[in-house]
Amino acid sequence: MTDAVSKLMTPKSIAIIGASTDPKKTAGRPIAYLQKHHFKGKIYPVNPRVQEIAGLVCYPDIGSLPETPDVAIILVGTDKTLSAVSELAARGTPAAIVLTSGFAEHGPEGLKRQEALVAAAGNMRILGPNTIGMVNVTDDIPLSPSSALEMSEFPKGSVSVISQSGGILGSLLSRAAAAGIGLAKLVSTSNEADLGLADFIDYLADDPSTKVILLYVESIRHPQQFRAAALKARHAGKPIVVYKVGKSEAGMKAAISHTGALAGADKMYDALFKEVGIIRADNFSDFLDIPAALTTGRVLKGNRVAILTSTGGAGTLVADGLGVSGFETPAPDEVTAERLRALQPGDQAVLDRNPIDVTLAGLQPDLLRGAIRALLDSPSYDALILILGSSSLAMPDLMASAVRDCMDASDKPVIAYASPHSPVAAALMTKQGIPTFTQPESCSVALRSMLHTSQMLQGVPVRGRLAQSPATLDSSALHGSLDEHEAKVLFSLFGIPKVKEVVLNALNPNLQLIEGFGDKIVLKIVSKTILHKTDVGGVALNVGINDIPNRITALMSDVRARAGVEVEQVLVQEMVSGGLEFMIGMHRDPLGTGILVGMGGVTAELFNDTSIRLLTPGTVLHETEALEMLKALKTWPLLDGYRGKPKCDVASLVQAIVQFSELVACLGNNLIECEINPLFVFVEGQGVKAADGIAIFN
Amino acid sequence: MTDAVSKLMTPKSIAIIGASTDPKKTAGRPIAYLQKHHFKGKIYPVNPRVQEIAGLVCYPDIGSLPETPDVAIILVGTDKTLSAVSELAARGTPAAIVLTSGFAEHGPEGLKRQEALVAAAGNMRILGPNTIGMVNVTDDIPLSPSSALEMSEFPKGSVSVISQSGGILGSLLSRAAAAGIGLAKLVSTSNEADLGLADFIDYLADDPSTKVILLYVESIRHPQQFRAAALKARHAGKPIVVYKVGKSEAGMKAAISHTGALAGADKMYDALFKEVGIIRADNFSDFLDIPAALTTGRVLKGNRVAILTSTGGAGTLVADGLGVSGFETPAPDEVTAERLRALQPGDQAVLDRNPIDVTLAGLQPDLLRGAIRALLDSPSYDALILILGSSSLAMPDLMASAVRDCMDASDKPVIAYASPHSPVAAALMTKQGIPTFTQPESCSVALRSMLHTSQMLQGVPVRGRLAQSPATLDSSALHGSLDEHEAKVLFSLFGIPKVKEVVLNALNPNLQLIEGFGDKIVLKIVSKTILHKTDVGGVALNVGINDIPNRITALMSDVRARAGVEVEQVLVQEMVSGGLEFMIGMHRDPLGTGILVGMGGVTAELFNDTSIRLLTPGTVLHETEALEMLKALKTWPLLDGYRGKPKCDVASLVQAIVQFSELVACLGNNLIECEINPLFVFVEGQGVKAADGIAIFN
Repeated sequence: MTDAVSKLMTPKSIAIIGASTDPKKTAGRPIAYLQKHHFKGKIYPVNPRVQEIAGLVCYPDIGSLPETPDVAIILVGTDKTLSAVSELAARGTPAAIVLTSGFAEHGPEGLKRQEALVAAAGNMRILGPNTIGMVNVTDDIPLSPSSALEMSEFPKGSVSVISQSGGILGSLLSRAAAAGIGLAKLVSTSNEADLGLADFIDYLADDPSTKVILLYVESIRHPQQFRAAALKARHAGKPIVVYKVGKSEAGMKAAISHTGALAGADKMYDALFKEVGIIRADNFSDFLDIPAALTTGRVLKGNRVAILTSTGGAGTLVADGLGVSGFETPAPDEVTAERLRALQPGDQAVLDRNPIDVTLAGLQPDLLRGAIRALLDSPSYDALILILGSSSLAMPDLMASAVRDCMDASDKPVIAYASPHSPVAAALMTKQGIPTFTQPESCSVALRSMLHTSQMLQGVPVRGRLAQSPATLDSSALHGSLDEHEAKVLFSLFGIPKVKEVVLNALNPNLQLIEGFGDKIVLKIVSKTILHKTDVGGVALNVGINDIPNRITALMSDVRARAGVEVEQVLVQEMVSGGLEFMIGMHRDPLGTGILVGMGGVTAELFNDTSIRLLTPGTVLHETEALEMLKALKTWPLLDGYRGKPKCDVASLVQAIVQFSELVACLGNNLIECEINPLFVFVEGQGVKAADGIAIFN
Repeated sequence: MTDAVSKLMTPKSIAIIGASTDPKKTAGRPIAYLQKHHFKGKIYPVNPRVQEIAGLVCYPDIGSLPETPDVAIILVGTDKTLSAVSELAARGTPAAIVLTSGFAEHGPEGLKRQEALVAAAGNMRILGPNTIGMVNVTDDIPLSPSSALEMSEFPKGSVSVISQSGGILGSLLSRAAAAGIGLAKLVSTSNEADLGLADFIDYLADDPSTKVILLYVESIRHPQQFRAAALKARHAGKPIVVYKVGKSEAGMKAAISHTGALAGADKMYDALFKEVGIIRADNFSDFLDIPAALTTGRVLKGNRVAILTSTGGAGTLVADGLGVSGFETPAPDEVTAERLRALQPGDQAVLDRNPIDVTLAGLQPDLLRGAIRALLDSPSYDALILILGSSSLAMPDLMASAVRDCMDASDKPVIAYASPHSPVAAALMTKQGIPTFTQPESCSVALRSMLHTSQMLQGVPVRGRLAQSPATLDSSALHGSLDEHEAKVLFSLFGIPKVKEVVLNALNPNLQLIEGFGDKIVLKIVSKTILHKTDVGGVALNVGINDIPNRITALMSDVRARAGVEVEQVLVQEMVSGGLEFMIGMHRDPLGTGILVGMGGVTAELFNDTSIRLLTPGTVLHETEALEMLKALKTWPLLDGYRGKPKCDVASLVQAIVQFSELVACLGNNLIECEINPLFVFVEGQGVKAADGIAIFN
């Protein structure tokens, strides 16, 4: 398989099926672009109606090609695509790029056509259909009719892009070129009838020209392969940055219409990206800003940033954004301040605060160089931000030439912000390895992604142990909805403690069974059919021990009157007080199975304050992951000893989450819904207790 | 005063004090720029060392000027500024622009120099010091040495900018020019020794060339004047857009060092902007995107948006952003779909969904025109977004020329998104009145600001009635900290109900006074010195009526042991249950007095879920404002009948907020701290009750 992808990315011979003689038409452009960028291999146009295209011999059909091409680009109509694919496959062509549209993106009939296409391809790999193709920038091989390729020279570099949208690929190419960001490989996977995101991530993880991988994602079709490929890239030290559409329902609908695939819920995507260490860009502009920072390869070791400026306002703007993002901008230490003063930038300069403002002296390259060196040498800073002021309009090379000689002497990250509209100066800087942004907020986004990447690449991904069913579990007995008590018995089989409780015969309760439950108890009806027990009067709190028989009778008549149900059994529970109400649940999704935690009650819902992690099939969550989930909650302080209150038993809560994940992993897809809510979390050393829960099986 | 500002903005004669012969130097540039832009009035250079500058007679001193200039630009050193200002004032010059720095931004000594400067100016108005000056773009009058003025032609239009940072002014000028956004007036107020934000907002509210006012704010020094000027602009139908730095502490420090003014807390700024209807830009890029949309003057009447594209991916991207911001993108209605089909854009086109994707047919101007007309005519849409695809690179005029003829036939807002980097096409569109953005997120930001503006300009600002002290209030008796009971008695004087409670003698409690309090009561010690009663064992809940004497004795000995305090009085309160715990507080700040509301307990703090409004001095909050504050809370659903629960008594809560604001307004600055927490809010019709509170006086 990798062989075919490799041939696709670096072909030595290319057949263009349905090539046009008009270089302006879609079907004429691939040859025009290959020639424009001096492709050194063979190009075989195929078109029965002409003899020659752009000086190349044109072949009447696939059968008459002088050799089997490494790659074919298919530009014929939807109706002729199938036979072209069959013929190419018959000749043993490794891979074909199907630009033709009218497949899965066009409803059920299109989907059928796509299935036929895959069948016809046999062992031949397909990129597309409905793709804009791919561009190997490294080796000057454009296999695409995108008019974004009109540019005479490609911006070469180490950022590779895999996009599920062809249009976005073109957009990124032109934007990267303008910003001075260098690219390596660009692929549009679109319908992904065959080759998809994972195949190309896998390829790029091995590609020596690629340092950073960008993904434009509408929907992940094969989460397991995706996960494996992403982890391979991580092990290869290559960060992945993703932009995922479908945050809103409206966006999701559009995504469906565009790729013919169902987009999963956005929160699950977040969980998947987090699991494999992928950086998610919040805004589209971040999507190019982040890789610009990451390709420098510089490692950010802390959060203290120096800002060197010659214009106060822009320095303030950048410092404000850094502060909001949790970075620090400490004043220069005494030694550094002394070095800055020795440069004599004049009376108006501000050297004992940060931003360091050299004012008009910023027009002197030597002085700039001295200041940059002093700040990079300073033990007080982990990174440096340079501000391009209005001088960058008249002297676009001023800062770039000043900083050039300083970079080798330090391995700290250096980025820049262009205050006026000075695209020439900004692109010069970026090309030189100092990513230069046009928005102040981009500076903190870039530094944050560098910090994340250094931590991620240094850290070892944790992986929970294999899930193991308790010997006492008889999963064949699990069908339909369990009642509350049965659910908790199941949880406790997996080691999750529950409140003291016992099921009694409603007509003849054996009160000896509730010894040790305390003075007051909770009484609930037991029923598999009534989901909301409170609504039918089926719950009584704070019931005195001696009142139990009477209260059971009252409960029975109440439920009889309100729900027409004859209560046969009641659940007696100890009253629990003093614990925090927590919830643990699971969510099945095309991306996988998510374990979700949050505070019980209304808070999680109103503030959307929950954490989700995806389970690696067959394994449990790792304790570290469970703890990270808790720490990601805004309500974490409540667990951690809020305002002098005692800390909660976080260790037991972490165990409960891990054990819940084991339950979910062991019971597999047979388990449809499962939730503990509330799980009471007591103070340190006193554990947790499940007080209610549901478990619904197939 | 307005006369002087008017002279400053449209001078007929300008003296340049300290002018240089070198047009590249700061002191030489103002004359160079005035001549470059063909200033038609008189220019009088003043410099004792030369006879002539740039063909103009140069005067040795201010005394020898042939007439009193309308405006003087002062470019001499800090030491000579004072005498220059005196001499200009003596000649009756209406206004001077002091570019010189070294004043309040340079610590206490600089502040003294600045005070002397203001004294020396007498009746002459000062812009600055430490300013970059101003540019009257409308009339081609640049009074500034900013190198951003190198451009040969100003981008004229209707956006005016007042900036407290000179550097940012230059940045905005160059960015606006590149984006095709037209400007009217630019002023840098900087240190604001005299003229400030309010003076120029006031001027621009009357300026016929200005439609939208932009403010770059580090700190508002005179909130009352600012408020009045902002309301004047609002009445004139001119929206104000603000970018405020100082969101982070780091940013605040930089702001202090830059303008020598103390920045107020960011939340209070939010409240002030909300109060007067100012739009706050979240990101720096929004700061130019929003006015680009608002200057079109088009009114957005609803939230249904059509997206016309020829490239699927970019359409999805924009639709996703709209969805996240609460906009709808419904499919075309049948009539509109029919009109689109009649244009015959080809088989691949998607006409029954939104984004409407005409694919390659987007290259035909006639077809584009037809589609634009159909969508603008459709009753299903309130606005239209056009997507510029890769064709805009080769044919930058394609979309602009197509849309040109369609604009007059509809008054709906039309904006655009440029998917590739196509600055020429984007600027062409923007200049033509179709603001074109380079980030997908900007589309929703722009539409949201249009919606806000239409609502704001249509709505009449509400204003609470005058605050009136209750006749029974003896405010001369209010000193120091009130105890809990005294605070609640004060609240009830202003009509805020409290729980039933009575203060009893601890040694000899008269239990007859608590008749009607119910079976169980709350017992609290009464003390002005102990703030946290619970910490010293000073509170007992759920006390049975018969236990009261014993519990009082226990309380007394507990508090004696733990705090060494002899309890003399106890407070007995009815037990309250079933209400939501709410809080109302006040916050004094340089910007004014804020009234703050939120849920009691930990939620408000952990999620920062509070609403603040500023009080107009002497008046109370209007009921509408109080209700808006509640609705802005994320916890509003809890008040409004969450998940089938009964609604809370919102009307009584609104009244309590209004009455609390009356208390704050009446007691004035003598009241230092005041808070009701908790205020129990019961179900509809059952009112509210203050259960605890503080009031601290001077």
